[in-house]
Amino acid sequence: MTCFIVIGHLARTDEEWSLNDMPGSAGRMDVLSRCVNASLFLSHDLRRDVDCCLALYGGPDAPKTVKFSGRNVRYLNPDERSAGALLKKALGLCCGTTYRESTPGVFVRKGGLPELLRDHACVVLDVAGSDIRCADVLPDAYLLSDHLNFTEEEREFIRDLPKYSVGPQALHADHTITVVLNEIDRRRPGWR
Amino acid sequence: MTCFIVIGHLARTDEEWSLNDMPGSAGRMDVLSRCVNASLFLSHDLRRDVDCCLALYGGPDAPKTVKFSGRNVRYLNPDERSAGALLKKALGLCCGTTYRESTPGVFVRKGGLPELLRDHACVVLDVAGSDIRCADVLPDAYLLSDHLNFTEEEREFIRDLPKYSVGPQALHADHTITVVLNEIDRRRPGWR
Repeated sequence: MTCFIVIGHLARTDEEWSLNDMPGSAGRMDVLSRCVNASLFLSHDLRRDVDCCLALYGGPDAPKTVKFSGRNVRYLNPDERSAGALLKKALGLCCGTTYRESTPGVFVRKGGLPELLRDHACVVLDVAGSDIRCADVLPDAYLLSDHLNFTEEEREFIRDLPKYSVGPQALHADHTITVVLNEIDRRRPGWR
Repeated sequence: MTCFIVIGHLARTDEEWSLNDMPGSAGRMDVLSRCVNASLFLSHDLRRDVDCCLALYGGPDAPKTVKFSGRNVRYLNPDERSAGALLKKALGLCCGTTYRESTPGVFVRKGGLPELLRDHACVVLDVAGSDIRCADVLPDAYLLSDHLNFTEEEREFIRDLPKYSVGPQALHADHTITVVLNEIDRRRPGWR
């Protein structure tokens, strides 16, 4: 099982935003929707062994985490609005500190980065890290930031975690996820 | 200069569609918007040496081609609606068989795949092709299909073109573009 964790620094934690304005009033929810797409979609199939956890820090009751589980997610299409609609539904659900399922394969709970780091042995994806193609064994969980850099407080949390880079260019979070999954795909037995 | 050419088999060639329904009435224009995003965006920057040409086959006066040129594109944000809005504007412009600029860096003309293959020495991205990581020299132009397979007629056109694969899994067109660009990035001098 592979997990991608993305911090949405400005992303709303309630449902009071419009699918027509995900980059604006929703706090760059478009970035997070694209990360869900990159994590879970294959051509005409889903990656059933991947989760995508979004830690949302930009609204009331922040932080909240929404988890998309490839194993049993339903009603998810590749367009941004589709993941956005499932996010909105999840954020409309009352929740505590344990995951509650809002639609099949989509879960929401209170809590953010510290809780996710307790759940997962994470590495950080960072353009200054070691080349992921040179890693002997690929990690199971990867942490990324949205369009903003990690905050000082987050940097403190992740200071001692291994850092990996996918290449020389700083990429969008969703593009980075795509490249990591390609590396994972290539290491599975049977590829040439 | 690198060019990605994507065939939109159902994508509208007029502007009579809604940004709120790009996957539906616009003929999977969401797929093409994501290909523009994957082709042109870096984190906080644009790939100024990449073009993305969309050959649209799903509406009146088909085919038409819309070209996004990284060199001078403006008003483009990473969300799907943003590329969608520029596409809609381009498709509202009267055009002939030579490119006409609708907004900075976005061009439209009549014509589709045959014209694009005359302009570019293309390879085809196909899961059954040779591994792109093993290519001695990376090509300059890459052809992909949207969510549908190439038609019989298209297959005839591209029969003799080299085929390259990015890995063992069949990926969405935009994810495939991201992986190709990562390979291009890694081959530039100075990366480790």
